[in-house]
Amino acid sequence: MTPGIRFLTAARRAEIHALEELARTGELVAAIGGLVHALQMERGLSNVHLASRGARAGAARGEQIVHSLAHERTVRARFDGLDTRTPGAVANGPRLFSRVAVALHLLDGLAETRRAVAALEPSPAQATAAYVRVVGALLAVVLHAVDSASDPAVSRLLVAVFHFLQGKEFAGQERAFGAAVFAAGATDAAQRAQWALLVEQQERCFETFARFADAAALAAWAVCEEPGGRAALERLRRQGADPPRDAAALGPAWFELCTGRIDAMQAVEAALVRTLRALCERRIAEARGELEDQHAILEALQAEARGGDAASAAALGPRLERSLLEMLQEQSQRLQAMGDELDAVRASLHERKVVERAKGLLMASRRIGEDEAYRLLRQTAMNQHRKLAEVAESVLAMEAFL
Amino acid sequence: MTPGIRFLTAARRAEIHALEELARTGELVAAIGGLVHALQMERGLSNVHLASRGARAGAARGEQIVHSLAHERTVRARFDGLDTRTPGAVANGPRLFSRVAVALHLLDGLAETRRAVAALEPSPAQATAAYVRVVGALLAVVLHAVDSASDPAVSRLLVAVFHFLQGKEFAGQERAFGAAVFAAGATDAAQRAQWALLVEQQERCFETFARFADAAALAAWAVCEEPGGRAALERLRRQGADPPRDAAALGPAWFELCTGRIDAMQAVEAALVRTLRALCERRIAEARGELEDQHAILEALQAEARGGDAASAAALGPRLERSLLEMLQEQSQRLQAMGDELDAVRASLHERKVVERAKGLLMASRRIGEDEAYRLLRQTAMNQHRKLAEVAESVLAMEAFL
Repeated sequence: MTPGIRFLTAARRAEIHALEELARTGELVAAIGGLVHALQMERGLSNVHLASRGARAGAARGEQIVHSLAHERTVRARFDGLDTRTPGAVANGPRLFSRVAVALHLLDGLAETRRAVAALEPSPAQATAAYVRVVGALLAVVLHAVDSASDPAVSRLLVAVFHFLQGKEFAGQERAFGAAVFAAGATDAAQRAQWALLVEQQERCFETFARFADAAALAAWAVCEEPGGRAALERLRRQGADPPRDAAALGPAWFELCTGRIDAMQAVEAALVRTLRALCERRIAEARGELEDQHAILEALQAEARGGDAASAAALGPRLERSLLEMLQEQSQRLQAMGDELDAVRASLHERKVVERAKGLLMASRRIGEDEAYRLLRQTAMNQHRKLAEVAESVLAMEAFL
Repeated sequence: MTPGIRFLTAARRAEIHALEELARTGELVAAIGGLVHALQMERGLSNVHLASRGARAGAARGEQIVHSLAHERTVRARFDGLDTRTPGAVANGPRLFSRVAVALHLLDGLAETRRAVAALEPSPAQATAAYVRVVGALLAVVLHAVDSASDPAVSRLLVAVFHFLQGKEFAGQERAFGAAVFAAGATDAAQRAQWALLVEQQERCFETFARFADAAALAAWAVCEEPGGRAALERLRRQGADPPRDAAALGPAWFELCTGRIDAMQAVEAALVRTLRALCERRIAEARGELEDQHAILEALQAEARGGDAASAAALGPRLERSLLEMLQEQSQRLQAMGDELDAVRASLHERKVVERAKGLLMASRRIGEDEAYRLLRQTAMNQHRKLAEVAESVLAMEAFL
């Protein structure tokens, strides 16, 4: 085997390895999706339990904690399965591992949150904040796992999954926020702004999801967004902005409607995970088949060159050369095209990352909360007629002065 | 060690590994730079040899081939050093390996080119084309090695090296092209356009180099571009566009001037490689130091927690938690910032890759040469007042129709 052919097959084998790793990433993301859903349910029940001073949802909360812990074990097993010993075994290793470390640390802290909720110590808002942090750290792991994907088709689906999970989390936060507003029977301007923000962030995420999702997931999504439910949701959002006298009576309706919608979202998630799994399997099978074809062609050509007499071997020489060169060029062009497509898919994550980092910078330098930082960015973008990502870039460029 | 701490240190170790790999990439790039320079010299001497029907440069060409072969051995040893067996050991493996395969294949073909040149079989243009292909394949390896860099500071330097090598290659092609024009004593419109193209592509590359290079390399670059030499170069370029009667007499002056400039460029390359090496060493030492600090802090905190009485351990508990969380967050924010910066550096390679691919598509679909494909893109960009990269993106988007 000449060194050239060694690298030709090494390239194909590296591609197969990257696809197999991507399949594992898909399973990790699916496991995190399951845990996030369980924690969202637990968060909702904890809120009801705290708001009712322990009168309601105690048993349901206890059962839900059991579910959450089961999902947590699955996710921890997936984390343990990440190869942290072989250098370079995991693409994007430094960033992914560091996010996993944060997520694990916050998951460790959940035991204390659960004890405190059982003792009715925190306010519903405090308990919510603890769960929001854990879910945020888990979604950050997903974002960095997605960012390391090396196949454009798989990467598109992973981008869809990430934005869907993130959108669903905003929907979960909106459910809790709305429930609190209806229970209080009144809102102020700041609360109205925050609610609007949750709706806006949610819709941005679902737009990106829709741009990258497959047909099955989009069909399941159409069920979540069916016009009747959508109209009811918008009506309650409007009523929430200016709660009527009997606002408290709307609370359960709001909670039920949101819960139905969020539960229906699980079908979208399941569809995405199914497609992702099938796509990874197909791509791995294809790449393996291509590797075998490559071996077969190379062997046939070399056997022919060896078996023939001197004249025919000489005549074949240039043909062997040409076939090899064609094979080499075909492969490198295909990989190049995939790389370019991948860059384009990744660009869709770039805006999200820039905004996240600008938010973090504003939070640290001005000692404000996450929502306020986001509002500040958005307000500046509106005032200056610029895109949110552009304002975020400017904030980052000014880092030295903040 | 809790799983969280395991991932915290795993992230740091993965970072160190990526930096070590990057140092190896730097050495590979430096070796390729040396080989490219040797092949450029050999190409020039082969041209003189062929153009003089074997009367000139025979001995010098023979000596230069010995140099080229020595550089080739170094590069082949570096290729052999790439780990193709451990899956995922080399970042960007599939694309890099596939480019290495093409480069090795074309290097294998140089023996036949050299034999043919010695037998005075090809025209100077044919021999040049063979060398241009090999150099192009070697530079493609550099581009893909650069694209896999995971540290923004190192990546910036690698981007500078790549564009410098590419610019120097255009300068070498311009030298050969101009020499042929002065020897012929006349140009047509197509030749003038092609010359202008070589100048333009060269300057674009050097602009990008200058944007990412360090001070030492820029100082060496200022020597190559000193005003006197620059003025002489521009004068000869102008005379080449409309060769005077005594054009043939200008040939040697042109060749000497270009050769002096290209040789001076080696100092720039050497400066870049030196800075790159020093930067990699420093970054690795820093990361190792940070890993040790991390260990020391963790051990001190844990020892304190173990050693104290129950009350002080309980008091330390939250402090340990806080320090850990701070350490985790500091690390993940730093890695995030690095990732964002990296995205920005890589974006500078994106345009180049898109234009390359659009060129390839036009060449295949219209059966035209590389220069003509580039001219077509550039002309369209000028007519439509759009950027070259935008036109290239449009071409790629129309792939199905071409």
